[in-house]
Amino acid sequence: MYRNYKLNELRMENIGEEVILSGWVSKVRDLGHFTFIDLRDRYGITQILVNEEVSGKELFEEARKLKNEWVIKVTGKVAERSSKNKNIPTGDIEVEAKNIEILSRSKQLPFEIDETGNLNENMRLTYRYLDIRRPKMLNNIIKRNDMLFSIRKFMNENGFLDIDTPILAKATPEGARDFIVPSRINKGDFYALPQSPQLFKQILMVSGVDKYYQLAKCFRDEDLRSDRQPEFTQLDLEMSFIEQEDILNVTETLAKQVFKDVTGIEITENFERMSYDDAMNFYGSDKPDLRFDMKLIDLSKETQNCGFGVFENAIKDGGNVKAIVAPNAEKFSRKYIKDLEDFVKTYFKAKGLAYIKINENGDINSPIAKFFTEEKLTEITQKLGIKNNEIALILADKYKIVHDGLGALRLKLGEELELIDKDSFKFLWVIDFPMFEWSEEENRYKAQHHPFTSIKQKDRKYLDSNELDKIKTDSYDMVLNGYEIGGGSIRIHEEELQEKVFEKLGLSKEEQQDKFGFFLEVLKYGVPPHGGLAFGIDRWLMAMLKENSIKEVIPFPKTNKGQDLMTGAPAEIEENILAEDLRLKLLEIEKEN
Amino acid sequence: MYRNYKLNELRMENIGEEVILSGWVSKVRDLGHFTFIDLRDRYGITQILVNEEVSGKELFEEARKLKNEWVIKVTGKVAERSSKNKNIPTGDIEVEAKNIEILSRSKQLPFEIDETGNLNENMRLTYRYLDIRRPKMLNNIIKRNDMLFSIRKFMNENGFLDIDTPILAKATPEGARDFIVPSRINKGDFYALPQSPQLFKQILMVSGVDKYYQLAKCFRDEDLRSDRQPEFTQLDLEMSFIEQEDILNVTETLAKQVFKDVTGIEITENFERMSYDDAMNFYGSDKPDLRFDMKLIDLSKETQNCGFGVFENAIKDGGNVKAIVAPNAEKFSRKYIKDLEDFVKTYFKAKGLAYIKINENGDINSPIAKFFTEEKLTEITQKLGIKNNEIALILADKYKIVHDGLGALRLKLGEELELIDKDSFKFLWVIDFPMFEWSEEENRYKAQHHPFTSIKQKDRKYLDSNELDKIKTDSYDMVLNGYEIGGGSIRIHEEELQEKVFEKLGLSKEEQQDKFGFFLEVLKYGVPPHGGLAFGIDRWLMAMLKENSIKEVIPFPKTNKGQDLMTGAPAEIEENILAEDLRLKLLEIEKEN
Repeated sequence: MYRNYKLNELRMENIGEEVILSGWVSKVRDLGHFTFIDLRDRYGITQILVNEEVSGKELFEEARKLKNEWVIKVTGKVAERSSKNKNIPTGDIEVEAKNIEILSRSKQLPFEIDETGNLNENMRLTYRYLDIRRPKMLNNIIKRNDMLFSIRKFMNENGFLDIDTPILAKATPEGARDFIVPSRINKGDFYALPQSPQLFKQILMVSGVDKYYQLAKCFRDEDLRSDRQPEFTQLDLEMSFIEQEDILNVTETLAKQVFKDVTGIEITENFERMSYDDAMNFYGSDKPDLRFDMKLIDLSKETQNCGFGVFENAIKDGGNVKAIVAPNAEKFSRKYIKDLEDFVKTYFKAKGLAYIKINENGDINSPIAKFFTEEKLTEITQKLGIKNNEIALILADKYKIVHDGLGALRLKLGEELELIDKDSFKFLWVIDFPMFEWSEEENRYKAQHHPFTSIKQKDRKYLDSNELDKIKTDSYDMVLNGYEIGGGSIRIHEEELQEKVFEKLGLSKEEQQDKFGFFLEVLKYGVPPHGGLAFGIDRWLMAMLKENSIKEVIPFPKTNKGQDLMTGAPAEIEENILAEDLRLKLLEIEKEN
Repeated sequence: MYRNYKLNELRMENIGEEVILSGWVSKVRDLGHFTFIDLRDRYGITQILVNEEVSGKELFEEARKLKNEWVIKVTGKVAERSSKNKNIPTGDIEVEAKNIEILSRSKQLPFEIDETGNLNENMRLTYRYLDIRRPKMLNNIIKRNDMLFSIRKFMNENGFLDIDTPILAKATPEGARDFIVPSRINKGDFYALPQSPQLFKQILMVSGVDKYYQLAKCFRDEDLRSDRQPEFTQLDLEMSFIEQEDILNVTETLAKQVFKDVTGIEITENFERMSYDDAMNFYGSDKPDLRFDMKLIDLSKETQNCGFGVFENAIKDGGNVKAIVAPNAEKFSRKYIKDLEDFVKTYFKAKGLAYIKINENGDINSPIAKFFTEEKLTEITQKLGIKNNEIALILADKYKIVHDGLGALRLKLGEELELIDKDSFKFLWVIDFPMFEWSEEENRYKAQHHPFTSIKQKDRKYLDSNELDKIKTDSYDMVLNGYEIGGGSIRIHEEELQEKVFEKLGLSKEEQQDKFGFFLEVLKYGVPPHGGLAFGIDRWLMAMLKENSIKEVIPFPKTNKGQDLMTGAPAEIEENILAEDLRLKLLEIEKEN
């Protein structure tokens, strides 16, 4: 037997008991005639006392030689501590060792388990097994478990069936982003790892399953960012015979329950709702962070004949003039403003960033003020509602540049001026997304969400018009603190409408058959109205735990280059396995390193 | 709104209520002035009455034209039925339709939903969404959900953390069976889909997680049989600071709980335990089906000098002479015995099948009887314990041929003579598997379980001997009705022992580093004693539901050729995606079709 107590369990009432404990040596303090060992496991820490008198000289000498992270088994008696530690639940007692058995030694660690500072990320990923011993990381792993179980409990209580769909699936049209898997039995053919179980969950509705959920692994072979991973976990759910409101209700209740189970905080009020148009117009984002205000202010009316050519032309060209107003104007040095301008120029192709700054004493400081009459300037500042020691940052450009640029600037200033209440959590529904989005690159319409999204009844009339932009969908994203944590829609359940949408997306009948033939067939056999939602588990948990990277909440994440530093995946494969088993040959590769 | 009741909910107390129902048309019966519709959803069936008087002529005419599997929404009033149906919970009532809305039409189905006979499997897989509408298949899907949740609930209550390990993993040494995934970002490198999370779960123990579980998708690219799939689901679990008995206890309790939640049957007695040696010696199988007896009887002693050369030589060559005794000897025609002999010859390379048949009247019928003295024959029949109208089937050959052959024959006869009580469930632990198994093909020792299995303390002395066969491990399989539903072991937690085992498996230091280098590194950092088990969910559920194929309990299985008939996976990939994204080229393929 290795233990009869875990290391968070012993209390005053156990005093006098003979116990067996096992765990990792977390600290050894040699105090001359005594040695104290902090013994650690997943559950806590218990102090071991090795006393020359009680434990014997031999054991005492041995104990002094123990090193951090060795695994030992201790037999001994529980005793009251002379100096108690109120910070840990076992702080009133210690165990006087009668025997210590070394179960496993450890060589010097690349970093300390109790290190709380910033560790090199690659080091942490290479030694993830040591990283997980660190209390913060272990806690994240435990919180992930709690979250997953909380979700399952809720889904189970609400009649959703847990159904697993294939990982070895068929390539989707966005084939370029699929991971593909050559088949040995069917040489020359390939599976694809699913980007999501979208079609399978719709198929399950056609199967009459009524309510489905799955915590599904999904895969995307694309360049990675700090909140992207090649494989990620999704809570996928779908319901039949429902309307949008039903889905919002059940998932909002779910989100509150999960939030409570993970953070301990109860949310009673309903989530705010905002249309996609409002989110874009007021926050320059389809996932606004509502922990602070700073809305975009539309100056288009005030500036259309303002005398300043840059503004006037932007309006004339069909664009906008918009501004955000920030406090602490005194912090906006010429240098800082220049940095902000570079930011919107670099990332959003803005042509420039105008500003109107009102000093503490009410003086106006603005290079563009000279273009305006005093009246016009007053009109503008009144519209801005700008006060002393505030600054308005103004973009005049095409819709996308103005809104994306100001949206990003708003978030940047929120961080840098510390306007965000980091203790608060703001949930939000963004609804009514457009169906189509014009792609400049591809010179065609693309589906903003996906092509299975149902079109609002009132907008179906635009399907045969030139105004596809006007078409809104029954769709919804759940946003937490500026992160999109989930999104979904009511789906198309009519075969004809589905074909029409494919057609508008530029798919010929033949391409439709090629790519979605089997699904169009499914739609011929009695399809219930249905809809659903998918949550990104990793990002959702990251937001709840206020982490900055999903790597903090994924047990074994890949690097931004898709590598597992611990195991060395991906790796080369022997040429003959490729050739014989799979009939594949590697072409020459230009190494970019 | 599509419904305010599900189709299993309405009762007498709802009479008079206006309700909205939606579902699939399951049956339409046109009785002249009435039309009855059975409306079906996941939950049940409710009868709709369309009455020319109440519903109006127009609706009545429309209702007559409804076809099976159309999806409709019905508004109407609950009324008492004149002729009640005691077989369904809603059988006392019907709903008098005031309005019917057709939500979706269906074309003619390839098979009927209420078809209970044998349907063509390929047809079922092609139209799996219709197959799942069939009550039996839907029930299996629901039972799978119940099983998965039952497991999670148990694991959660017992302190196991649900931790997901990567699907995009590193190739394991048995590389030939790995599915591999080319990386676009790391061109020329490949991930492998995991055959099991074995190393990750051991790593989690080194991480201090203490108790881990996961319902993990695992993958094996090998030729498929009726109870194999290229992807399958495993309940993977691992514990630290435990001994074998701890794991057997917790997983036996789990298995009983799951069994109760899925079948409704409570098992109170402990599972029987049997050593691997006994299982092989008495049942010719490491997963004996204990629903019937028919043990293997060892005749080696009795036949070593029996006068029959075939038997004597088998013993001399180090082999065995063994028999099974079957009842209903009258069924064993010469033709049937010949078929059984062909069976053991074909599948097990037996040289022949001897028999001794005792007729109803006590006469001995046996072509080999003539080789024995009367005394010897009596000695043999006494050892066999054979009675009138019984037959002994005897193999004399090498250990493997005798035991595999008789083991398979035993199962075959169990089925064909209907000796198996199909209503009973027999759980069994098989324990103490050998560590090494000599591979004739590869002319080297292989690990019978896997190379991470811990060797019994008392057998470690054989590691440096020529008697590797004698080494037993702390290992265990859970067997249900002759299916291995789970297996596991205590693991090696000592780096030196792990290296020694690799060495005995013929791996040079270099190969060890190549294949397991990262894991040998893990073992250097303080490893707790640990062990675990993995259950095959699909096979386990199949055994509980008494299905004959795991395809019956997997929502979307592949065919035995690894194909998804519904979606058409796997499929060809465009040459330029292969070449540009992955730098791969397909070699010429000889089509075997």
